[in-house]
Amino acid sequence: MEKFEVTILGCGSAVPNARHMTTSQLVNVHDKIFMVDCGEGTQTQIWRMGARVSALKHIFISHAHGDHFFGLLPLVSSLSLMLCRTDDLHIWIPAEMQELLERCFSRWCYLPFTVVFHGIDPTRRAVLVDEKEFTVETVPLNHCVPCCGFLFSEKPKPPVLLPERCKAAGIPPRQFGKIKAGADWTLADGSVVPNSALTTPSDFVPRRYAYCSDTAYYPAVIPQIEGVDLLYHEATFVTADEQKATFAFHSTAAQAAAIARDAHVGRLAIGHYSIRYTGEDELLAEARQVFANTVAAQEGMVLEV
Amino acid sequence: MEKFEVTILGCGSAVPNARHMTTSQLVNVHDKIFMVDCGEGTQTQIWRMGARVSALKHIFISHAHGDHFFGLLPLVSSLSLMLCRTDDLHIWIPAEMQELLERCFSRWCYLPFTVVFHGIDPTRRAVLVDEKEFTVETVPLNHCVPCCGFLFSEKPKPPVLLPERCKAAGIPPRQFGKIKAGADWTLADGSVVPNSALTTPSDFVPRRYAYCSDTAYYPAVIPQIEGVDLLYHEATFVTADEQKATFAFHSTAAQAAAIARDAHVGRLAIGHYSIRYTGEDELLAEARQVFANTVAAQEGMVLEV
Repeated sequence: MEKFEVTILGCGSAVPNARHMTTSQLVNVHDKIFMVDCGEGTQTQIWRMGARVSALKHIFISHAHGDHFFGLLPLVSSLSLMLCRTDDLHIWIPAEMQELLERCFSRWCYLPFTVVFHGIDPTRRAVLVDEKEFTVETVPLNHCVPCCGFLFSEKPKPPVLLPERCKAAGIPPRQFGKIKAGADWTLADGSVVPNSALTTPSDFVPRRYAYCSDTAYYPAVIPQIEGVDLLYHEATFVTADEQKATFAFHSTAAQAAAIARDAHVGRLAIGHYSIRYTGEDELLAEARQVFANTVAAQEGMVLEV
Repeated sequence: MEKFEVTILGCGSAVPNARHMTTSQLVNVHDKIFMVDCGEGTQTQIWRMGARVSALKHIFISHAHGDHFFGLLPLVSSLSLMLCRTDDLHIWIPAEMQELLERCFSRWCYLPFTVVFHGIDPTRRAVLVDEKEFTVETVPLNHCVPCCGFLFSEKPKPPVLLPERCKAAGIPPRQFGKIKAGADWTLADGSVVPNSALTTPSDFVPRRYAYCSDTAYYPAVIPQIEGVDLLYHEATFVTADEQKATFAFHSTAAQAAAIARDAHVGRLAIGHYSIRYTGEDELLAEARQVFANTVAAQEGMVLEV
């Protein structure tokens, strides 16, 4: 199975502390590396963990709160200083941030490679990256500033060629590529052998990963993330602090789990913990009451999708 | 003796790694807290060490390289979120940084207190803070961008009153304050008792701390830091890499020590280590060959001035 995994670099909320760094994660899809959010200290987490970022090509920033992007300038500075990078780096940010952030980069960051900024509209669904084997798209969320999550989706694989059937139909092997690509085959007498008779559907089940942070409880997200294999959903507060959650456009652990349950996801990882709690036991217990297959994200954790 | 000490929060150079954070330190002068430089992750160091920053009033930034200020916005953001701060915070930065940094603060930092930016000219000596008991001034350095160090100097204490002499001269105790402040005393017959006959010079020896980072070997700094009790001087490279040091406007450990020796300082702390070295043994040995009373700064180290 090709690699599809999420590495948690930071899963705390607004202020880092001894237990948690602010938000960032690496998503490895078929050995292509993406970063989602980039709080302060993200590069330190990367160097400590020995995470592979030489191939990092896209960074997605969910919203304009510092705990999700203050590590961007330092990280890219260090990539410039340390690695013999020549590839472009694409940074996707809410469009309102673009002008000022570009100025900061051009003023305070020596860049031997090109940084391409892409302003996104967090309020609308859009495909940001469309690769041969997968896509990355926005997931509009409900926070106090424009904010979106990101959905990583493998594409279905094409049908598998049945060589014996092809040979029986007299198809020369050099034409097999066309059949693989979905073509029918026309015999000498003009009759057509449909592609479905020459191939069998792939048994590959595309996997999907959804990242939803930061957001209030927001059921409107459910249709878009329905059935994902892994959902990372913020769970800043416990239920006793639900009013605080509502006020700050954040979620409780139980609300995160309700989204997971109602969207029939495979597994839920909660994160973005408020520093008011000294551990994640209560958050995790509350979430598991609603959706059993829940883990509490921790720095260094690798989650397979 | 009143407190005068330096706490090292970070003493690495451009890129943080597993051993060192980028540059920042706290200077406590008579329980007033100052910060010098603020690399990425400075706030994390503060929370980890339990350092006291509620009374932090001034932050001095030496120059516009990210490893000396990328932690500023995140730190001030967190001070806003965590502490019930109402006092103004003064941030002293090279004037060329001011406009853009102010825009970043006003856009990306919710501030329940006032941040006052002061643009400084790193190429000129100037007193930035003039308190009753001490001053803070710039120390122009020689780096590839405008850069200055900072000099913290206790002021001499006024002479000590000799009560017996004052009584003998018939001075009523309620006038002692004037004598303490340096006044002479005029007797009834018009003759004058000079202040020096009523007081004795304080035996207090003012202490001074100089911070010099980043800089090439720069003997022009010597007259200004002559005789300081403690000098923190960057020592990015070993002598074998002196060409690299010269090219990048940095110092070798031996050059830092030569400055310490020629300025007759009390003690030298080296720092700003290049990540190319796996430890500080060679840097320290080279420095001590030139100036014996040298220590290698480490995160968490507290240096008494």
